[in-house]
Amino acid sequence: MINSEFDLINQFIAPPAFKRADVSVGIGDDCAVLDIPAGMQLAVSMDTLVEGRHFAVGAAPEDLGHKTLAVNLSDLAAMGASPAWVTLSLTMPSSDIDWLCRFMAGFSLLAKQHEVQLIGGDTTKGPLSITVQAHGFVDPQHYLRRNSAKPGDLIYVTGTLGDAGLALLAQQGLFVEQQYLASIRKRLDRPTPRVEQGKQLARIASAAIDLSDGLASDLQHVVLASNCGATIHVDNLPCSEAVRTYVKETGDWSLPASSGDDYELCFTVPDNRQAEFEALLPDFGCQANWIGTIERQSGIRWFDAHGDVIDPGCGYDHFRQ
Amino acid sequence: MINSEFDLINQFIAPPAFKRADVSVGIGDDCAVLDIPAGMQLAVSMDTLVEGRHFAVGAAPEDLGHKTLAVNLSDLAAMGASPAWVTLSLTMPSSDIDWLCRFMAGFSLLAKQHEVQLIGGDTTKGPLSITVQAHGFVDPQHYLRRNSAKPGDLIYVTGTLGDAGLALLAQQGLFVEQQYLASIRKRLDRPTPRVEQGKQLARIASAAIDLSDGLASDLQHVVLASNCGATIHVDNLPCSEAVRTYVKETGDWSLPASSGDDYELCFTVPDNRQAEFEALLPDFGCQANWIGTIERQSGIRWFDAHGDVIDPGCGYDHFRQ
Repeated sequence: MINSEFDLINQFIAPPAFKRADVSVGIGDDCAVLDIPAGMQLAVSMDTLVEGRHFAVGAAPEDLGHKTLAVNLSDLAAMGASPAWVTLSLTMPSSDIDWLCRFMAGFSLLAKQHEVQLIGGDTTKGPLSITVQAHGFVDPQHYLRRNSAKPGDLIYVTGTLGDAGLALLAQQGLFVEQQYLASIRKRLDRPTPRVEQGKQLARIASAAIDLSDGLASDLQHVVLASNCGATIHVDNLPCSEAVRTYVKETGDWSLPASSGDDYELCFTVPDNRQAEFEALLPDFGCQANWIGTIERQSGIRWFDAHGDVIDPGCGYDHFRQ
Repeated sequence: MINSEFDLINQFIAPPAFKRADVSVGIGDDCAVLDIPAGMQLAVSMDTLVEGRHFAVGAAPEDLGHKTLAVNLSDLAAMGASPAWVTLSLTMPSSDIDWLCRFMAGFSLLAKQHEVQLIGGDTTKGPLSITVQAHGFVDPQHYLRRNSAKPGDLIYVTGTLGDAGLALLAQQGLFVEQQYLASIRKRLDRPTPRVEQGKQLARIASAAIDLSDGLASDLQHVVLASNCGATIHVDNLPCSEAVRTYVKETGDWSLPASSGDDYELCFTVPDNRQAEFEALLPDFGCQANWIGTIERQSGIRWFDAHGDVIDPGCGYDHFRQ
């Protein structure tokens, strides 16, 4: 009977929340068949979220639907790609239609917002796990790599850093003022993929990555791939009031510097294009702040407001007696 | 430490077994970036295999590597697509390098054979589960759908049917003669995706599907989508000696008619193109047998050699006392 139950599930997944003209065959045949615009290349990214590892047992299904799509759109954003299609493989312990409808509501809302069509996938029975592949288009002359930062390039990040990390700490028992809880929780559960920003950056940034594992770890990928290093001024790390309060009280920079799950973009701009880039900011759609500079010397050096080198990597022990 | 273990894993996955010129960016950035040949469309298919459901606990990793790729290539074959790239999301309970190397050996051997490049994916910790997405190219004028069979079309299948089902029964305790065990086991564990046959059929067949769930179930998808029905002559179902022996001894047609996991193609040919199709057979690469005819009347009717209607769907009870 499982099969027919899962057939039923497909009825709740298959109706597209957004329909695109470039989909010749969508869900319902052996393959989807798709048109790539002339002169464009295809960009693809796949991410899996596993219950108990990437999200808590009992997480709200609407949030999960949003987040599994968002983390993949964030990878497209980091290449400067325009999102087009997604596939979804959903492994569920049982055919829970209520859970599924709520999951698809979160997924579909974000899909519609980015004009993305769900074109295929799989539904299987097993421990809860969700795999999404996102497909987008890039201009072959203008897409963003990790390996193309150059010494002298200015390093920027979108939005604010450390909110998702603070929400995780709050879940683990850290006291966070009531007024901040809803906003940081939303940043953890419903991250905003910086798709429009990535598209604008495609013609001007020299390199980009999305911040899934935290700035320290993700910027490390950029400087290693680009065969260079970086200097970061922690005082410039853009923080929400919640995170700023935390840093002030603890002296601990690890939240904005190295906690994950923010899904902001970190990107580099050649110094001779800084004015051109900053002219974009009024219509950029979110804040983008200068945080440091790419340098010839390998490694990442973190400086505080006094010009002293600090190590922001090791988080403060919040639960020390 | 899990992260660094899984970083290690990526070292065993990332080196491509086959490199393609149409891959601008492969594994190692936020997205892969890919070229679609001018005038072609993209065909994509995603399948997930879960331990304990799609394969037994303790299954040989080489077989799993082969099979997860094969089932996806089989979907491309059913559209008449030329395979190009695959992504792989591997969720494993621990970073077992020996298991992984053996898995990748099976995966890579088949990838090389079909000139397919692994271009991305994800590695996560969790209950064993494998998701693959296959990407191929189709000519917009000539690809194979499920919904385009017409009354009068001749129905064919590639290869032989029921071998994988017999291997499963043997695993469950059914006595099968020793001389047959290796060959049927291979059909279950290392199915052959009919990629070259699918490409040849793209210009001549009117509809196609791959047989993952069994002929009865998969042909049902074709006739429903095509708004027609079918007549099948069970005596014409192509069987290996092992399955023929089984049918002879039990009188049970359910193995060739409705057991799954064979990954053969079932396809329809307009009757005025039969001669043209049969002229392909000497170089087709495998046998292809006529098994019945598409008809206006809905449903599938199964006839035995005496012209009597039979129901081949309900398997023989092998373990009846």
